[in-house]
Amino acid sequence: MKPYALLSPEERKEEYARLQAEYNALKAKGLHLNMARGKPGTQQLDMVSDIFHLMHKPEDFFSDGIDVRNYGEMAGIPAARRLFAEILDCKPEQVFVGGNASLQLMFTTISTAYTHGMLHSPRPWCREEKVKWLCPSPGYDRHFRITEAFGFELITIPMTDSGPDMDAVEEAVKDPAVKGIWCVPKYSNPDGIIYSEETLRRFAALSPAAPDFIIMWDNAYCIHELEGDYVPFPDILSLCAGAGRPDMVFEFASTSKITFPGAGISCFACSEDNLAYMEKLLSIQIISFDKVNQQRHVLYLKNKAHTLELMKKHTDILGPRFRCVVDALEQKIGPLGIGAWRRPTGGYFVSFNAMPGTAKRALALCGEAGITMTGAGATFPYGRDPQDSNIRIAPSLPPVEELRQAMEVFCVCVKMAALEKLGI
Amino acid sequence: MKPYALLSPEERKEEYARLQAEYNALKAKGLHLNMARGKPGTQQLDMVSDIFHLMHKPEDFFSDGIDVRNYGEMAGIPAARRLFAEILDCKPEQVFVGGNASLQLMFTTISTAYTHGMLHSPRPWCREEKVKWLCPSPGYDRHFRITEAFGFELITIPMTDSGPDMDAVEEAVKDPAVKGIWCVPKYSNPDGIIYSEETLRRFAALSPAAPDFIIMWDNAYCIHELEGDYVPFPDILSLCAGAGRPDMVFEFASTSKITFPGAGISCFACSEDNLAYMEKLLSIQIISFDKVNQQRHVLYLKNKAHTLELMKKHTDILGPRFRCVVDALEQKIGPLGIGAWRRPTGGYFVSFNAMPGTAKRALALCGEAGITMTGAGATFPYGRDPQDSNIRIAPSLPPVEELRQAMEVFCVCVKMAALEKLGI
Repeated sequence: MKPYALLSPEERKEEYARLQAEYNALKAKGLHLNMARGKPGTQQLDMVSDIFHLMHKPEDFFSDGIDVRNYGEMAGIPAARRLFAEILDCKPEQVFVGGNASLQLMFTTISTAYTHGMLHSPRPWCREEKVKWLCPSPGYDRHFRITEAFGFELITIPMTDSGPDMDAVEEAVKDPAVKGIWCVPKYSNPDGIIYSEETLRRFAALSPAAPDFIIMWDNAYCIHELEGDYVPFPDILSLCAGAGRPDMVFEFASTSKITFPGAGISCFACSEDNLAYMEKLLSIQIISFDKVNQQRHVLYLKNKAHTLELMKKHTDILGPRFRCVVDALEQKIGPLGIGAWRRPTGGYFVSFNAMPGTAKRALALCGEAGITMTGAGATFPYGRDPQDSNIRIAPSLPPVEELRQAMEVFCVCVKMAALEKLGI
Repeated sequence: MKPYALLSPEERKEEYARLQAEYNALKAKGLHLNMARGKPGTQQLDMVSDIFHLMHKPEDFFSDGIDVRNYGEMAGIPAARRLFAEILDCKPEQVFVGGNASLQLMFTTISTAYTHGMLHSPRPWCREEKVKWLCPSPGYDRHFRITEAFGFELITIPMTDSGPDMDAVEEAVKDPAVKGIWCVPKYSNPDGIIYSEETLRRFAALSPAAPDFIIMWDNAYCIHELEGDYVPFPDILSLCAGAGRPDMVFEFASTSKITFPGAGISCFACSEDNLAYMEKLLSIQIISFDKVNQQRHVLYLKNKAHTLELMKKHTDILGPRFRCVVDALEQKIGPLGIGAWRRPTGGYFVSFNAMPGTAKRALALCGEAGITMTGAGATFPYGRDPQDSNIRIAPSLPPVEELRQAMEVFCVCVKMAALEKLGI
């Protein structure tokens, strides 16, 4: 196989005809496969379903003397706060444990800033002339949608191998209308990049013009290694506090990919002043979150060491899926020079960059052949990838055999789109 | 015992001295009793804790073919939507099943109106010059706090024996700044009043100046009878639709007082157009609510008939508590002419009206003697009862023996406060 760029027009035509035949044959199989979202597969769900065998004995309903079945403990049961604090390497008093969705806690933080302002806000953000928000891209579409929904102007920050381009971030925060930034610091969504210590240091040292600038630190994959041992990661709360800005960061985490997506527990961690402020406002909307589920998770996960053991079992299930995807790319796309990607060491995605101007077309072809993927452009603000290149692949849901088929289709589609772009 | 109003100054002095001795003796017991919130007691929680013995078999995790452990089904699992629809006598397509707190769904509705507007809003409410809100009072403090938190002007609407004063409501909605009203239509909080059919008819026939006026219909006690059989209640959604305004009402309900406060499931019900609108906005903040808990409740509660059987068992536990409170009032306060109350037939509260100008003082005395009550004034907008008269008694949490003690203290305090007011 030669790189496509070196093919003659005739060779491109021949190759395209061959691919078209292959595509039609695959299409005829009537596949229905999904690599769109970071959903765990059934094997992962079954593995943790014994969590529901807990909570049988009367004493299981009590934690630190609190009856977890009744109202109360707005910030979560102390044992759940301790568990997340151990995992995130911060203090229990900095942790607020919520419901089943960290996304909802993130939304609530932004929504609160919009309707009431944050601790250091001169006014609620809905009273600001304009609010701008930094979006390292490629990034997580659901993050971008939250800030888009409140009418903020989304500003793309390029991603580098060590995290967001910090020169660009430091420049951008000089604008007082810039109120915050989205970050997935460990195994970034979708690139799988771990922010470097230098990046973390520069984040903590930021001196934004806006007094109420927030770093939204979504540590979604904090213990989600795909190979090898747990990789320790510095605590951003201490770093910001050390730099004299303890209130600049809100960290988020959940057990959505430890126990159940949608039936786990979530948290945010922040300075104690921020926590007191948020708790007061949250108490307007809810009496307390589901403490029975918090207690169930405390009994099941026990502590960080025990949780890391469980994560290794997830890795055993996920590892072959990720290898299947990356191997397919290496074998089928690599030699052709029409795509770039990383082999992620953690997280839930493979980020694939197709030849500029071909991502949409490739995914349209995938769709016709029954393969559902995250929409092209989704990893950029407003769903618009200026290069039309980035495609987020989510290998977690389908079993390996289905993934293999899906990747076969995917690679054919990427190739066809590339040839169409080069001219056939 | 003579009515206090008929006592001579000397008799008042004597009576006060006698009460003071009684009060000091009670205070010396060092009681710590709580009649502040509508929290179910341990006996009720224990009764339903076998719900956690469900979800053991692999097939328990599937509902209508949906794996309840994974992401998806934003509006809730169909079986949970059917269950609430049967209880509320509406259609499953009108029901959105959420997380553990109907209060959060109410907050989200108001917050959405504030940040984005409702279906028929000319603009988001945060862009309105002024928003006013109707608060039938006495009412639920947490309702009032939500609308207060967004800076709405709260307007008190008097309660009558058949629900809110509809003449006042019909007059108030002529003001286009009036955007909605809080209602607890069956066993109102705290009065225990069931809105009459005439009241419901007039609600449905409202013709508010604001095109986006919402009736917030918190049917918190829809099946929460305290004596006798289930009392059927007309479906407000049909009534509003029949009157040509299907989008004017949002109904709310939960299992907080059927299974667990804080670990149950909640819902809102509304027109299908409203539901589509809310679902789109909710999908920005959450991927899906906890469907495992939804499924657990479907398996446990089964259907309306089975749920009503369970409610009878709650009544068996609650009935004696309510009788204890009302009996104490009838025996100790009734003959003195210094208070009025109803014997509620459902709900979670006894609403007591002390002699005007004495509620705060009575509760301060209670507090000193170790009895925690909902703060005086809490049942009115901004926590200010213009009469300083209404006191909400929550009999559900303490066992009957403790309630008896608490009511003994309470009645002494009410009497002392009355005598102080009359002059001693």
